[in-house]
Amino acid sequence: MTGLHTTLARRGLMFILSSPSGAGKTTISRMLLGADDEINLSVSATTRPRREGEIDGIDYHFVTPDKFAAMVEADDFYEWAEVFGNRYGTPKGYIRKGLKEGRDFLFDIDWQGTQQLKQKDDQDVVTVFILPPSLDELRRRLESRATDSEDVIDRRMDRARAEISHWAEYDYVVINDDVDACFVKVREILHAERMKRQRQTGLIPFVRELMG
Amino acid sequence: MTGLHTTLARRGLMFILSSPSGAGKTTISRMLLGADDEINLSVSATTRPRREGEIDGIDYHFVTPDKFAAMVEADDFYEWAEVFGNRYGTPKGYIRKGLKEGRDFLFDIDWQGTQQLKQKDDQDVVTVFILPPSLDELRRRLESRATDSEDVIDRRMDRARAEISHWAEYDYVVINDDVDACFVKVREILHAERMKRQRQTGLIPFVRELMG
Repeated sequence: MTGLHTTLARRGLMFILSSPSGAGKTTISRMLLGADDEINLSVSATTRPRREGEIDGIDYHFVTPDKFAAMVEADDFYEWAEVFGNRYGTPKGYIRKGLKEGRDFLFDIDWQGTQQLKQKDDQDVVTVFILPPSLDELRRRLESRATDSEDVIDRRMDRARAEISHWAEYDYVVINDDVDACFVKVREILHAERMKRQRQTGLIPFVRELMG
Repeated sequence: MTGLHTTLARRGLMFILSSPSGAGKTTISRMLLGADDEINLSVSATTRPRREGEIDGIDYHFVTPDKFAAMVEADDFYEWAEVFGNRYGTPKGYIRKGLKEGRDFLFDIDWQGTQQLKQKDDQDVVTVFILPPSLDELRRRLESRATDSEDVIDRRMDRARAEISHWAEYDYVVINDDVDACFVKVREILHAERMKRQRQTGLIPFVRELMG
């Protein structure tokens, strides 16, 4: 009990990062997953066929369209969406088990997925919106990928504006004008949220023992 | 707008640290004040006579008992208390001005002061409770000060238990089993709270300009 760095049992959290494409969300996510052992990327279920090299249960939970439909029917998803004819969703079961065991889950989802998730479980969800410093900068970042035509980039910019319009639905907002500084801020949010009283399930037994 | 580390206008916050005497609150407070330019210790008003070396407006706002009573009557305090016949209180005026200007205030107060403060302004208040790793350790820390008799220490321990019994009224709880680790955690909480959407008053004009 008196050892250094007492670690108490805690309930995990669902950590949502949203941003327009090009604002650095994927980079920040990777940095966070690399720096922190207690958080993992949530694994979606999908009806999309498995591609070469993809592993069931790691990249996705691959399920048949019938199975997916049955899971929707049974309210087994926190959120789901259809993209280009394939369905993607976050299955509740393994997340719930992980949260109880004190593991955190990182979600890289848009404002619609975020709304659905908060609807299902607001208590365990922490939402962070990453803003680009400017739209010019965002366009530069999209253009520097150099794989897309001007038309595609215009459409991505429209989608970026639509995504940004939902910034005010998030708990925290961070401007990514420097990726390292942005990462530090996002990690501070994660660390602070872990110290919220309600998440520290080990506090009640700890204080009981403390008081004797 | 595209400069590094964009700084937006934000509303300040009232950062409350509570803990039993001996749990390290004063050390953590000093470390925080030394490391961070945007947070200042809140200056109390008091009816206690000014002591040699104390400066009005820095150490305390020294006021007469009549003035203090009039301020209580006018609801000019966030919280106040009487200790050994002298009154101490947190005047609203200068805190409100500071919060608007984006300055944070550190409060080193007990559970009673915390309850009063939250009653008056829950939105701007962030509360952190610091727990000792054990009561044996707390007693050791109190005894190491070596200025108090066994009797006085017993009474302090009773007061410590009473203070600890209020841990569940706080937003965040940190166990101080290592002062540097505890300081890092408390600072992460402060930094994260600054990134809360509602506190970042500059976001609305920023996004307006962003969207063009």
